[in-house]
Amino acid sequence: MYPDPASVRRVTTIGAGPIGGGWAAHFLARGYDVTAYVHAMTERPALMDIIETAWVSLTALGLAPGASMERLTVTDDLATAVSAAEFIQESAPERLDIKQALYERLGRLAPRACVIGSSTSGLMMTEIQALCSTPERTVIAHPFNPPYLLPLVEIVGGKKTEKAAVDWAAAFFKVAGKEPLVMKKEIPGFVATRLQEALWREALHMVANGEATPEDIDIALMNGPAPRMAVQGQCMAFHVACGEGGMATNLDQFGPALKWPWTRLEAPELTQELRDRMVDGCNEIAAGRHFIEMASTRDHEIVAVLNAIRAVRRVRGSDG
Amino acid sequence: MYPDPASVRRVTTIGAGPIGGGWAAHFLARGYDVTAYVHAMTERPALMDIIETAWVSLTALGLAPGASMERLTVTDDLATAVSAAEFIQESAPERLDIKQALYERLGRLAPRACVIGSSTSGLMMTEIQALCSTPERTVIAHPFNPPYLLPLVEIVGGKKTEKAAVDWAAAFFKVAGKEPLVMKKEIPGFVATRLQEALWREALHMVANGEATPEDIDIALMNGPAPRMAVQGQCMAFHVACGEGGMATNLDQFGPALKWPWTRLEAPELTQELRDRMVDGCNEIAAGRHFIEMASTRDHEIVAVLNAIRAVRRVRGSDG
Repeated sequence: MYPDPASVRRVTTIGAGPIGGGWAAHFLARGYDVTAYVHAMTERPALMDIIETAWVSLTALGLAPGASMERLTVTDDLATAVSAAEFIQESAPERLDIKQALYERLGRLAPRACVIGSSTSGLMMTEIQALCSTPERTVIAHPFNPPYLLPLVEIVGGKKTEKAAVDWAAAFFKVAGKEPLVMKKEIPGFVATRLQEALWREALHMVANGEATPEDIDIALMNGPAPRMAVQGQCMAFHVACGEGGMATNLDQFGPALKWPWTRLEAPELTQELRDRMVDGCNEIAAGRHFIEMASTRDHEIVAVLNAIRAVRRVRGSDG
Repeated sequence: MYPDPASVRRVTTIGAGPIGGGWAAHFLARGYDVTAYVHAMTERPALMDIIETAWVSLTALGLAPGASMERLTVTDDLATAVSAAEFIQESAPERLDIKQALYERLGRLAPRACVIGSSTSGLMMTEIQALCSTPERTVIAHPFNPPYLLPLVEIVGGKKTEKAAVDWAAAFFKVAGKEPLVMKKEIPGFVATRLQEALWREALHMVANGEATPEDIDIALMNGPAPRMAVQGQCMAFHVACGEGGMATNLDQFGPALKWPWTRLEAPELTQELRDRMVDGCNEIAAGRHFIEMASTRDHEIVAVLNAIRAVRRVRGSDG
């Protein structure tokens, strides 16, 4: 019933803020016809500013053939905006009443075969879709800021969402140049924000206790874990760092450290089941590659990242 | 009493593991004469493997004039290793009894004006220096793995360490091509590991509860926060994302979200003092720059990072 994800040509975005505008820019850069719905035409200049700013980066990343800002239409009429949409990305204000009223209208106005994705970072689709008459095709499609640059889109449905819509969204975002992550469960904060939020709250504790300043936090991240995390996630970082033994060695050797006060967050009990999931998961990602090969790839990519940052700062004459 | 940090020519590293070997490689690449102490000469081949592997990346990052692997001496005699050292980086096994016995010897054998830095990630310098007769010059100098690539070195003294040694270490690491972070307090996990550990424990909770697989965790990090965090820390990420209002808007607007279950870590109370510290800290980092300028710099640098990763993966014919 849903169209071939590769056949989609017309995307509608909702919202004139940094997220809505960022999405419009992204889809334009991937060569789509984009209709941007704004609450009032007075928001148009702000929207265009965001898109024009994003366009500089998107051009540097490489535009799809035929991509053009000329293929943008802006309207404040919701029916017009969505009547011919093949996908809708909603980035309305983060208020449940606003979203629920909007999805009630979208449920009536948007073609049934059109999946609707929400950029919400704090609300659940089960709540958002409560008043929608066609909730089956509504999904969370949560980007990371800035949405025109960071590839991640976290996808999950609400209780009334059908699996086909979730699958379609994942396939579509892949075609549309994003890195979709289909979530296992509808949980607050999804995956990436939960990870970031844990880090952020530990940072707030440190600042509150005079253990670090905001500058210390940022220096530590930029020069410590982040350049590695950009090329290798934390699971594989530990797996590869432990050599032949991998994640199993990590958990057996550093398992006791999970009880240490290295953060205010208490770790879960390291059960055999959790250990197996971590070890099996890492082995699946490794897919037979030897740790020496993976360490070499990691190093090669970290060097590329560090040299790229250094080069761009040298050109800008700034240390960041 | 300590030498001019810029005059240092001879560095001694202790330890033949990935951290000790990584440090030896780093100092060689910065043009130092390096003496590597190993517990037994049978460890030499493993040490050389680590250094040779690191050398590939260090060469790609750019060697200092005169840098050469030929300037490495390996010995299993501690007195010889440290007798002429101008700085010692210790990366012995992470056992307190081993470190304490080692610092007892180092305290007698190393020249008094030679600062000794420990790579420990889990122990406190106050404990490590307990049996050392010259503890004033012993400091934590904690790198991030891989130590030859990631710039961060977290520096803090123990109760018996003198401030001059901490200051000297910070100045020396800056000269030696690292990004030193002098910590405000001696706390378990220092700064960067605490941030990473909070994230890691949240990840373990998610895997334990079937909310995410290890692969999901890694995909979320690599494609979400990490490429941004490599160029902009989390404090400035929020500050810049909130536009004109900056961190103040972030805390006022998203402050309530700190109570939401976006992670299992409870946030500290958002007191006026904490709010002021965060806001003032961000304004200090911004140093008068407008948020639009900082957002543009962030985007420019994220593009550089993403393009660099893409380019290196294209050459390798691998998706990661």
